Amino acid sequence: MISKSMENLVKNNSVIRQMFEEGKILSQKYGKENVFDFSLGNPSINPPVDVDNAIIKLIMNENKLDLHGYMSNSGYDDVRENVAKYLNNEFNTSFNKNNIIMCTGAAGGINIVLKSIIDKDDEVIVFRPYFMEYRNYIANYNGKFVEVDFDNQFNPDLEDFKNKITKKTRAIIINNPNNPSGAVYNENIIKSIAKILEEKEAEYGKDIFIISDEPYREIVYDGEIVPYITKYYNNTFVVYSFSKSLSLPGERIGYVVIPDEMNDKENIFEAVTIANRILGFVNAPSLMQKLIGKIIGKTADLNEYKKNRDLLYNGLTQIGYEAFKPKGAFYLFLKSPIEDEKEFCNKAKEYNILMVPGSSFACPGYVRLSYCIDSNMIERSLNRFKELFSCYKL
Amino acid sequence: MISKSMENLVKNNSVIRQMFEEGKILSQKYGKENVFDFSLGNPSINPPVDVDNAIIKLIMNENKLDLHGYMSNSGYDDVRENVAKYLNNEFNTSFNKNNIIMCTGAAGGINIVLKSIIDKDDEVIVFRPYFMEYRNYIANYNGKFVEVDFDNQFNPDLEDFKNKITKKTRAIIINNPNNPSGAVYNENIIKSIAKILEEKEAEYGKDIFIISDEPYREIVYDGEIVPYITKYYNNTFVVYSFSKSLSLPGERIGYVVIPDEMNDKENIFEAVTIANRILGFVNAPSLMQKLIGKIIGKTADLNEYKKNRDLLYNGLTQIGYEAFKPKGAFYLFLKSPIEDEKEFCNKAKEYNILMVPGSSFACPGYVRLSYCIDSNMIERSLNRFKELFSCYKL
Repeated sequence: MISKSMENLVKNNSVIRQMFEEGKILSQKYGKENVFDFSLGNPSINPPVDVDNAIIKLIMNENKLDLHGYMSNSGYDDVRENVAKYLNNEFNTSFNKNNIIMCTGAAGGINIVLKSIIDKDDEVIVFRPYFMEYRNYIANYNGKFVEVDFDNQFNPDLEDFKNKITKKTRAIIINNPNNPSGAVYNENIIKSIAKILEEKEAEYGKDIFIISDEPYREIVYDGEIVPYITKYYNNTFVVYSFSKSLSLPGERIGYVVIPDEMNDKENIFEAVTIANRILGFVNAPSLMQKLIGKIIGKTADLNEYKKNRDLLYNGLTQIGYEAFKPKGAFYLFLKSPIEDEKEFCNKAKEYNILMVPGSSFACPGYVRLSYCIDSNMIERSLNRFKELFSCYKL
Repeated sequence: MISKSMENLVKNNSVIRQMFEEGKILSQKYGKENVFDFSLGNPSINPPVDVDNAIIKLIMNENKLDLHGYMSNSGYDDVRENVAKYLNNEFNTSFNKNNIIMCTGAAGGINIVLKSIIDKDDEVIVFRPYFMEYRNYIANYNGKFVEVDFDNQFNPDLEDFKNKITKKTRAIIINNPNNPSGAVYNENIIKSIAKILEEKEAEYGKDIFIISDEPYREIVYDGEIVPYITKYYNNTFVVYSFSKSLSLPGERIGYVVIPDEMNDKENIFEAVTIANRILGFVNAPSLMQKLIGKIIGKTADLNEYKKNRDLLYNGLTQIGYEAFKPKGAFYLFLKSPIEDEKEFCNKAKEYNILMVPGSSFACPGYVRLSYCIDSNMIERSLNRFKELFSCYKL
């Protein structure tokens, strides 16, 4: 009864749902406070009070038909202008409203970009490990998914990257900071990626786009800097979401940046705007757009995530686990003490610990722990992690 | 540079944009109050005060992480339960939360349904005249668009309908009340459609779905009744949006109804939920969902549209124009006094009147006037319509 493209997704979804159900059963059995759920990427820090205050002000003061009404499919002019100004101030760019399209979260943003540039069988390159949903987004437009390997710092293997670019390559997706590894690709890496792409563009006589997916941009530690890629490579879309920085993931609000330097920029801007319409988003939610216009630059108190990272990373490595020290985002990528990380995740459930197997990010042998949870929960989990680890001691 | 599927859309969009620019030029030249813009379907009546009050209460009282956070891709349980209860009370149905998926406006709702049921080359039937965007929605999933003719009351030509159903037919889209004609398909018509479909389902041994697109459900006149189609045909999706009834078109909030009676209901419900996720909607905007949970059943003061309908319909027919008297929605479908309705629209611009040619709804020879504008504007426009009409007098 359902379409062929959805058949496998529905089948696999029951597995995920099963995991979710198991979590609920654990909570009922042992009490919610005794289940250590590291599986979800839902922000744990309240939105800043500016969010509430600005929404109430908007409700009190704005014309209702404007506040909740249709506007251009690319978003309100004044909001787009404010986003451009903020970016210019922050990254020394020179955008204006004609470089900004307000979109329905980063997931919406990536979809409208892909719809605008991908033809059937065009290849899109993604660096492992990656947010599995990219596969579905690319399949929506009948594109082909191409994986690139990583090095021991979870940076892309640039040799492999070079080899994977073909005359069918249309775009690469970069997720920086990275979900699930917590890696941050620094300026040198971005420069190398840009150089490789420019050479391949010349070799094949065609444009290749970077789609830079940046919902974790502000969540970085130890002075890491996330390069603003439009400054390194002309054919770059930046896709941003306020889900993590403002703790508003349910509101679906973000923007796409399309720089003037992009080849055929005017037509592409129009295509992405129309894609926003015809894919059924129509426009980013209007009240949330207006909110962003008022408070852009504010964030939730993201320091909490730094505290959680240190607590979890130090705690686990002291026990004896091997893990990559996250440079950004709110995920810890832990090496499974045994080869089959799914078995490890199942074992962990016996200790009321829920984690996501690395195979879900094309990276078996690892597990992902989301530390966007209460610090106290992390502290109390460490004893259970110790008991779990003792199962695998020689 | 842009994808092939978007090329024509970008090309044609410049025509629409040109129209929009001309409107702006007219406004600058003659003053906004002297331009009679009947081209846009943007509600002109303020949302009810309940909207503001409920949003402020939610902001004051709800847990922030819940109010703005992720939830199931099908929406908050309590909101879905309230929608189901409202429908049961209103239409004597027996839904519960497992029949409701909150979606990103009707445009989002139709897209997630099509994604879930349409394979390449499946045929989707639409009744003329129709909202042109259906063509794009169906093309998103590589479906084939099939048109059915109408009779002199703008009801579907049922003979033609029967003939257009083939073994490739997967769905039909019904828009009731209809944009752009203002027709309302009554119980007899819906029963006939259901009967034809059931016969064809039996003949071809396959399921054919109705997708009932109902954003104008509450906007009906003279006691017209809009049948609730799940009661007449099992394989029915109802797609609803609050854009018109609550005057919130920018907020992108609606729901999809999937009745228990639908064949393979469980899998289809899951497919539509997953489609919501993978198309990039993820979930309907969270604050707006919670708002609906609180105020479902309230509407803006829709009587204003009735007043506008009478003013415009009576005014124009007294001048001598021929028009279909709208039974619902807020559009008047006017017969062009000359065969080429685009030429008529161009002539109208000389009188500062903006209308949309019927060709944009697969219905040349007619023009669409949106009367969701200030009543005073309609009154003042009638003299200009009279002058315009005199150009065509014998």
